Order: sequence, then structure tokens, then C-alpha cells
Amino acid sequence: MNIPQSSYPRVIIIGGGFAGIALAKKLANQEFQVVLMDKHNYHTFQPLLYQVSTGGLEPDSIAYPIRKVLQGYPNFYFRLAEVSQINKDKEEVETNIGSLKYDYLVVAVGSETNFFGNESLQKNSMEMKSIPQSLNLRSLILENFEQALLTDDLHEREALMNFVIVGGGPTGVELAGALAEIKKGILPKDYPDLDTRRAQINLVQGGDRLLPAMSEIASKKAEDFLEKLGVNVWKNLRVQEYDGKVAKTNDDTIFETQTLIWAAGVKAVCLNGLNSKEFLCRGERLRVNEFHQVHGFENIFAIGDVAQMESETWPKGHPMMAQPAMQQGRNLGDNLVLLSKGKAMKPFNYNDKGSMATVGRNKAVADLPKFKFQGVFAWFVWMFVHLYFLIGFRNRIVVFINWVYNYIKFDREARLIIRPFKKKYQLD
Amino acid sequence: MNIPQSSYPRVIIIGGGFAGIALAKKLANQEFQVVLMDKHNYHTFQPLLYQVSTGGLEPDSIAYPIRKVLQGYPNFYFRLAEVSQINKDKEEVETNIGSLKYDYLVVAVGSETNFFGNESLQKNSMEMKSIPQSLNLRSLILENFEQALLTDDLHEREALMNFVIVGGGPTGVELAGALAEIKKGILPKDYPDLDTRRAQINLVQGGDRLLPAMSEIASKKAEDFLEKLGVNVWKNLRVQEYDGKVAKTNDDTIFETQTLIWAAGVKAVCLNGLNSKEFLCRGERLRVNEFHQVHGFENIFAIGDVAQMESETWPKGHPMMAQPAMQQGRNLGDNLVLLSKGKAMKPFNYNDKGSMATVGRNKAVADLPKFKFQGVFAWFVWMFVHLYFLIGFRNRIVVFINWVYNYIKFDREARLIIRPFKKKYQLD
Repeated sequence: MNIPQSSYPRVIIIGGGFAGIALAKKLANQEFQVVLMDKHNYHTFQPLLYQVSTGGLEPDSIAYPIRKVLQGYPNFYFRLAEVSQINKDKEEVETNIGSLKYDYLVVAVGSETNFFGNESLQKNSMEMKSIPQSLNLRSLILENFEQALLTDDLHEREALMNFVIVGGGPTGVELAGALAEIKKGILPKDYPDLDTRRAQINLVQGGDRLLPAMSEIASKKAEDFLEKLGVNVWKNLRVQEYDGKVAKTNDDTIFETQTLIWAAGVKAVCLNGLNSKEFLCRGERLRVNEFHQVHGFENIFAIGDVAQMESETWPKGHPMMAQPAMQQGRNLGDNLVLLSKGKAMKPFNYNDKGSMATVGRNKAVADLPKFKFQGVFAWFVWMFVHLYFLIGFRNRIVVFINWVYNYIKFDREARLIIRPFKKKYQLD
Repeated sequence: MNIPQSSYPRVIIIGGGFAGIALAKKLANQEFQVVLMDKHNYHTFQPLLYQVSTGGLEPDSIAYPIRKVLQGYPNFYFRLAEVSQINKDKEEVETNIGSLKYDYLVVAVGSETNFFGNESLQKNSMEMKSIPQSLNLRSLILENFEQALLTDDLHEREALMNFVIVGGGPTGVELAGALAEIKKGILPKDYPDLDTRRAQINLVQGGDRLLPAMSEIASKKAEDFLEKLGVNVWKNLRVQEYDGKVAKTNDDTIFETQTLIWAAGVKAVCLNGLNSKEFLCRGERLRVNEFHQVHGFENIFAIGDVAQMESETWPKGHPMMAQPAMQQGRNLGDNLVLLSKGKAMKPFNYNDKGSMATVGRNKAVADLPKFKFQGVFAWFVWMFVHLYFLIGFRNRIVVFINWVYNYIKFDREARLIIRPFKKKYQLD
């Protein structure tokens, strides 16, 4: 892979997400050779993907070139690569661009959509875990409205304007809220010749409340907010089958829709060589100890969504979110330095700063450790926190300007079909 | 096509570029039913495409939703459609989404890359006339550097870092300058493990000077600027063949390159039904009279790049640029109103405001009717003019911020491979 030999031990980090980047920053100017691999040449700020899908933000402003993060770090190498295999015996990572030996291996590959083995859903529904997927969804939503204009079949037209979002976690709630605002603020002006009141946004949740990882009051408020925005919230309902036209559920409810977005589950990305039962927990996460070490290995670590560190407070591991990932990355960075100096590592301790979700303008819910609040103030805090954690000054300012503009104008100007989604597959 | 009947005459505008949009704005609140068709749902600000290709700007900030332009205009309809045929006898436009009759037809379909029938060039070189094409070029440039890192074959590595831009008009000059700045300011920091000094930027011009449509002094200065930036400028040289690896020219010069950008010619987009010899001039433009009427028709008009209005001052028609297109659109708008009121139309008179090209930071050339100037001031004027003509307040401010940021930081942060180019075709 054309990485020079070094007198320092080599750390291979697979994945440039929140965990991998936090770790890389900690290892700058330490006595390691660091090789960071990712299948994209950019870091994605996943919490704002739904705004790319709904035309509120450009993809470029929630992505950041990984090479730029590493600029000026000595002994750092980035490789655009897809890992095909971990060879634990030879201590080697195999990729599409060759193999590379490691002294320390850090798996930070994150998570992907979990369809729980359901093939019809996997084949026909939209995902929103990456920038290309979010852009596909943006294109599809806009293409469907263009197509709705063209049909005289009222049934088909309604199916084209009927959106079903499966999963009542933060992604589902935020996307449903954004679509509801588009329905209200943009569609009537963009499509004066279409009865856009018939557009429906359905949010389908398997459990008995939205945002199950948050407090009861947050769930309740989020539901209120969504209903005020005109979203149909369905609880205790599970979508079980979807052929691209009709979604069937566990009861008699069916949805005729040409857009089903699956946000009902994630699972860890699996790497060959680390996918046998001994390493894995539920959701295919890698079982790690309090030093992020993968079960049975001294020099293989896992951090971020892919890792499951079980503890008394977190019996199922930490939530699959940015905060634990960043904290784990930083802790592992410190520990690798300690380890290389022959000192004892410090066990990881998750500092839960709480969680938030936004529903729409002036509407968000926040559960902080000390207090819980909802509404305008939560919404401002949500924006501030997201701007703060976004990487790059230019990104922050561009996102800020877009938000101010969208807020004042009730608008989302990035409603552009740059790469058509349907054409790609159907060539029509 | 689901357009209601109206008591007003129907104007079909094909194309939402500078000409089509300028015309549409003039027809707002007039006694017409207007149907604007485009194969994209956005207007593209083509003069800044090269900045998208080189990671300086997001595609979304140089595009603008056409539906938003038309918001609030009564009797306006937008259709995302590709026109397949003009049926002059039935006065009907045939598209991929159905047919529609017109009372007045305005062809504003613009221009596309002209390979002058050369198949090897058409197949293997990159174009830069649309946003998807510009994004493909952005991906390819970045992918090539990632690939250059991986090879031990010095020959191949140099071919991956060797850029050949064919065509010394504004597009070629601007792109060459931008690539030279990337080579100087970004590559050494992004690729510390690559000898990026070996990267070469070649600008190949068939004639004996760059920017042949501008003044001698502008040509001279642009060449000086490019040479200062380290661009190899080749004059009186024509690329005649390119197999994806080696470009052959009309003399012994060859270029081993994996990136050849063809900016050496444009031609009008041809529509079936208007493509017989009687309508066409050189470059497949439609011959129009001083009222933009296509030869032989009272109610078929052509404006913008696609139209050739020959006059004493402009024996080969107006330049294929934004200014004439916008002026023609506005003039035709006024004329259609006059025509519908039974009044005499006003012949078009092109007000030449001059032309400009930018080479790099603080380096531009400008030929205004009264005076010609080059350097820092020309560069500021260039930026101001481009911001002024960009559609949309949000776009202007986002582009402005990117420019300020790039200027201060010597950076271009949108160097993201969102959709890989090579993978798309080679599936590797």
C-alpha cells in the first residue's frame, strides 16, 4: 500500500467518522505512524443528513475532507480504501488497494441501516446513512412531485405524494418534521397546479412512543409538535413488507406510497475476520472491554457505533451517537500513548451530556442530565450544539447562513435534482 | 401533459438557462399561459462550473430551482421534461412526458460540448457543461491523486498527475488557473507523501493566442498569469486523438495523461424537427431574424446559445455567453407582449458590455467597451459581476463566503468525492 516503514509502531484506524477523527487528532505529534482508511475521502456529519435530503443544506457543507483534518500531522497517512478482511494471525488489514500490517488496529467503521433480514424492505426502501443515500432521497422526493403532476390517476398521484417514514427515533422524527414543513411552506408555492394538501407524511413507530431513548416528556412533546405540523404519527405499528408501491404492516393498515424511508434500525458494519460469534453482540457490534479492546486481543480496538462496551450503567453498550464515539476516540488516543510508554491505560468512562432532537422551526426537545426542556429554547440549543460540533469554520458559517435564510424565508433552496434517482435504475 | 386550457395564448419555452429565465420573467403577469420545460429542475450558472470542478464551490450554490423563479407568476407551468421532437405542422412539442400544443414556441436549449465528430475524444475526455459533468470531473481529479499514491510505477504516477485542458477560451483558462492554484496551495499539504511538484497542468490551444475572442492585451496577460502560476501553455497545437491514456496531437507532441478536459468547442443543442439544413448555420445554431424568429416561422423563436442572429456587427451571430442570452430573452419578452397586442415588434440590438476571464487570485483580464484592464482590479470586478448575476440571495452570500474563505485560507474545501467517477464505469 506504499506506506513507508517507520521506527514508530503503526496504528491503523479504519473509519473517519466521529470516533476515528477524534482518535486521529489525539495521536497527532505522538510517537506513532498512523494510517487512517475510509471508503470516502470525507468525514460525514451524520446528524444533519436529513437536512440534505430535504433540500435545506448542501452536502458539501456537512462533509469535510479527511486529508484536511490530518494536514500537518507528521507520520500520518490517509488511504481511500475499502477493507475486505482483517487477518488477525498475520496482523494485517486487506483492502481493495492492497494489504498493510498493523501494530495496533482500531476498528471505527460505524453503523449501517438494519433491515433485520427483510428483503423486500431492503430492496425497495430508501436509506439515509450516507451523503449519496441522502441525495438519492432528495432526488426521489422531488421526482415524485414532478411525476405527481403528470398523472390523471388520483390514486397514483396520492401514492406519489404519500411519504412513509419507518422508525420513530431522532432520524425519523427530524425527517418527518422537515417534510411537514416543506409540505406547508414550499409545495403550495412550487406546485400551484397540484393539490399538495393531499400530500401525507406518515411516521410509523413500532413501540408505544417516539424517541424511546429519551424521556417520556420529550416523547410526548415531539409527538405534539409533529401533530401540529400535520404529520400522521402511528404507534405500535410495524411495517413488514414493501414492494415499492404498497407497504403492509402487522395489522390491517396499509400504505400506498412510492417513498418509504427506513429509519427503524442500525447495525454495526461487519468486517470479515471479526465477524465470528466470539466477538459479536446483538446488532453485530464488537464486544469490547473498558479499554476498547476487542474480546481476546491486546492490540485490536473498536470505538464508536461498532463497539459495544457493556457496563452497569450501560448494559447494552453506549448509544450509537456522536458523543460516545468522540469520547471513546479521545480516550483511546490517550490510552495508546500510555500503552506505548508502558504505562497503565485508563478505563473509559462515558460522560453522558444528554440528547436532543429537533422537529421543526422553534420546535425541539432536549434531555440534559440536569434538566429537560422543549420548544424554542431547545431548538436554539440544538442549532448551537450542531454548529459547534460541525468540523470546519467554512462549514459552520455556510450552515449558519442557510439556517438563517431558511428561517427568515420559510424556504429550502437546495431542492435540486442533481443526479436523478429513478432514472438511475429505470432509465426512463 | 396535464396543462389546463387557457383563454390566453400558450408560450412554450424550452430551456431554463439565462435566455429562458430572462424571457419568463418578462412574461410574468402578461396575458399568456407560459409553459417552461427543462431537463433539470434547476437553472445552472454555467460561468462558475469550473469552480465546482475544482472544489471551490458547492454545486447547490450555483444552481437555482426553476420552480422558485416562477413562484407567484400566474399562468406559469414548469415541466421537468426532455423534448424529443418539434412537430411544426401540428404546432406541438413532443417530450418524454407527453405532447403539448403551442401558440408560440421559444427554443432556448443552449449549447453542448462539440467534439467535431472525433469519437476517441468524445468517449474518453471530460466535459464541463453541466453540474453532473463538473462533479464527475471533480471526482476524477481527486480519485487520480488518490491512485497516484498507490503506484510504484513512476510513469503511471505522472500520467495520473498530468492534466491536459484542450481549448484556450475562458473555460480552459479559468480551469487551468484553478488547477495550478490547487497544485501550489493544496496538494503539498493534502499529499505530503506524494511528490506533487511532478503534477503538470497543460493548456492546449489550437490557435496562436489564448482567449481569441478578447483583445490582444488580454490574451497576452492571461498567458503571462498562467505561466506565472506554472501552467504549460501550448499554442498552435491541436489534440487529435485520445485513448484515455495518451493524447496525440497534430505534431510530434504527445501527452500521457489520465485526465483530458475538452473545452475546445461548443455547438448548439439540436432538436428533432428543427435540424434540417434550412434552419441551421455553422455549429448547428438556428438561423433567426432580428426578432428571434426561426427562418420561415412567425411563431417559432430561438434565443441564447442556440440562436444565430447575423448582422453587420456580428456576422457570425452573437457570442455564446450569458449576456446576449439574457438580453435576447428580455427583448423577446417585450416583443411577445407587443405581438399579442397587435403592435410592431422591436428588432434586437445587442448591447455588448464586454467580456472577462479570471486566471487566479488577483489575476483576471477584462475588455470593457471603453477600456481594457488586467490584474487585481479586473479580478474584483469579475467577482462582483458574477455575484451580481448569480440568481438568489442565498446563493450570492454562500458563494461570497466561500470566496472570502478560499482567498484568506488559500483553500478549497469542497474537495469531496461524493459520487466516484471511475467506479461508476469500471466497477472496481
